[in-house]
Amino acid sequence: MFRKLVSLDEAKRIVKQSLSLKPVGVERVSLSEAHNRVLAEDVVALRDVPPFSRSTVDGFAVRAADTFGADEDRSVALKLCGSIRVGENSSVVVEKGETAEIVTGAPLPQGADAVVMLEYVVQKGKTVLTHRAVSRGENVMEAGSDIHEGAVTLKMGQALSSREVGVLAALGLKQVDVYKRPRVAVISTGAEIVEPGKPLTPGKIYDINAHTLSAAVKECDGEPVSWGIVLDEASRLKATLKEALDSADVVVTSGGVSVGPTDVVPQVINALGEPGVIVSGIAVKPGKPTTIAIVNGKPVFSLPGHPTSALLIFHLLVRPLILSMAGRQEETPVLVKATASAKMFPARGRRTFIMVSLTREKSGGLFASPVGLGLSGAITTLAEADGFVEVEESRQFINAGEEVTVRLFKPVRVVSWRK
Amino acid sequence: MFRKLVSLDEAKRIVKQSLSLKPVGVERVSLSEAHNRVLAEDVVALRDVPPFSRSTVDGFAVRAADTFGADEDRSVALKLCGSIRVGENSSVVVEKGETAEIVTGAPLPQGADAVVMLEYVVQKGKTVLTHRAVSRGENVMEAGSDIHEGAVTLKMGQALSSREVGVLAALGLKQVDVYKRPRVAVISTGAEIVEPGKPLTPGKIYDINAHTLSAAVKECDGEPVSWGIVLDEASRLKATLKEALDSADVVVTSGGVSVGPTDVVPQVINALGEPGVIVSGIAVKPGKPTTIAIVNGKPVFSLPGHPTSALLIFHLLVRPLILSMAGRQEETPVLVKATASAKMFPARGRRTFIMVSLTREKSGGLFASPVGLGLSGAITTLAEADGFVEVEESRQFINAGEEVTVRLFKPVRVVSWRK
Repeated sequence: MFRKLVSLDEAKRIVKQSLSLKPVGVERVSLSEAHNRVLAEDVVALRDVPPFSRSTVDGFAVRAADTFGADEDRSVALKLCGSIRVGENSSVVVEKGETAEIVTGAPLPQGADAVVMLEYVVQKGKTVLTHRAVSRGENVMEAGSDIHEGAVTLKMGQALSSREVGVLAALGLKQVDVYKRPRVAVISTGAEIVEPGKPLTPGKIYDINAHTLSAAVKECDGEPVSWGIVLDEASRLKATLKEALDSADVVVTSGGVSVGPTDVVPQVINALGEPGVIVSGIAVKPGKPTTIAIVNGKPVFSLPGHPTSALLIFHLLVRPLILSMAGRQEETPVLVKATASAKMFPARGRRTFIMVSLTREKSGGLFASPVGLGLSGAITTLAEADGFVEVEESRQFINAGEEVTVRLFKPVRVVSWRK
Repeated sequence: MFRKLVSLDEAKRIVKQSLSLKPVGVERVSLSEAHNRVLAEDVVALRDVPPFSRSTVDGFAVRAADTFGADEDRSVALKLCGSIRVGENSSVVVEKGETAEIVTGAPLPQGADAVVMLEYVVQKGKTVLTHRAVSRGENVMEAGSDIHEGAVTLKMGQALSSREVGVLAALGLKQVDVYKRPRVAVISTGAEIVEPGKPLTPGKIYDINAHTLSAAVKECDGEPVSWGIVLDEASRLKATLKEALDSADVVVTSGGVSVGPTDVVPQVINALGEPGVIVSGIAVKPGKPTTIAIVNGKPVFSLPGHPTSALLIFHLLVRPLILSMAGRQEETPVLVKATASAKMFPARGRRTFIMVSLTREKSGGLFASPVGLGLSGAITTLAEADGFVEVEESRQFINAGEEVTVRLFKPVRVVSWRK
């Protein structure tokens, strides 16, 4: 039933193989809620944008051929036949030798095929003298020139920034199908933890993980559902896990997975459904006492109680899963090269992650310094760290002065290069 | 009353000089709402974290001096005097020659000053044989070693990621003071625009700007308040602007500021209060017909109707203001160097922004290609652009093959270097 300690790479492989990385579902949201969501459909233009040919300037709509020969010294006289305002369904028709006054954004009248800008024209009553020749289409934005009817304008899987929201608006869409955000149940276990704000009796500490993990879930487009603190007591824990599994897509617990006598999480999980625990312990530091389970197709990650360990394992294993389930593309971690400012000792035989802060020296060099006393229980470790150095299982140590690669804590996709 | 066309730098200077860039206010939020907000107070620790000395391992609490001399071959016998569980207020006292069973996270009992790990110990009834000598403090996280009572743990102005939220939780804080998000009224004007989802009659187009600008407001930590579409009709516009100014911190309108006969926005603004319009037209392309006004201390940005122009000017002038008003630090734009793939023609005498998409060639080279037909009215220009090239007023053109600097559309602060 239990597997032995697996390597981090093996754990990642097992997660990928055993779990569905597909989006959890689709929901329809209004345009005003679409920002920052991920499209679950290709968006096909149901009409041309713009829907009609528009003037891009204030001036006079003309037949381009009528203006040939006009220049600064020589004007061409046209007969004013009307005026077109924006937003109006005008019946004006520009015949040969005629022109109609037009403003920016107004529909080009029938017969006209170009617009002469206001500043090149002198108007004398019903006579308009143009001092400029224009070519067909000049100062006109043709119907459909921005988006053609029938074109796939945005693609399934695209994240909607302000700019894509603009495209949806241009197409007249009031609603759009986006991927649902995976619901992630967050459960803290442990007899010693107390909800912040409540009095702290001797021997107790405040619950950190429920709050860091809920925030971390938001940071990867999940929707955290807090189940609060559950005692390490089998029946209570079982009931909570069952409810959480019923209502959430992913369950994340923290605490209660080390070797102590009160660590009942794995046993309870195995009793809930098949296949139960699939990874029990990972050869990683910090974060060794991590278990991964699947109960009726849903993943349960039981993370260590120490905040740094819990958040690190979340970043390495849970975050990529939630991003996939939210329909997001795999992210490229942001890596920077820096010089180790002190000797670093990884744990032998385990993939070691050393939290570091980055310092830019006056010389311009970038230095990575380990933070947090090496204690994975220290919360300041998290707050002070800019990222972490990943050390291979086989390394004995990293020397001061050696170049290291730091993975920044906030992996951001700076830009998606086109192929 | 009106100023002449000003340069972009002058417009930026005027905004900085004329407007308060201070945060708009402070509000108290619960810990679960604190994520992604900005601290409006220094957070001082009201207690030690951890509040007591804790064991970091499962094992036996000892007086370190008692274990001296113990090693793999030679054990030291100690008398078991009790057992300490997590979360309990234990009355166990470890006297000289004694030891108490302890689990990870449990409070170190009185008298003990170190913990021997389980695996170095053999237990025979009430006798505990340790095969390991420990030094004072070994396997113990001392009270206050993570955070000292009285320490300023987080600073005013810090943004709260999952990691800082963890620090607040560790301190037991249920609520925290954060900066209010500035309320930004978004108003679209124009007789030709229609709300997406409604039928489109001839001569009409869908309102894009209300949606792109509202999303852009969210992207810089503002709270958009949509006022919908208002006709270019003075009395109606005046009433809406007045209401918007009463309830919002910033007003952003779009459309109705070019030179056409129906452009009443600036006139209406001047009638609302002092000093009224302070910038009327900026020597920039696109975005020339931009006006900036102050009415009773509140800024009103009247952006052009063209979506690309409106969003560009928002990025250049409005976004930095909203960020400041939200208590956020000034952001560092993300710039990348690329090769111009085509000749680019800036507007003479105006700072020109050319929207480009980036392409990574097989050779590894990065190329910037202008997008969107050069039409600032095209919405696809926005969706296709990865960023823009800023061209100085004095430049005649940029040659194909020349190196250009592209400012990415999503400026992200990759990491804040410590000093």
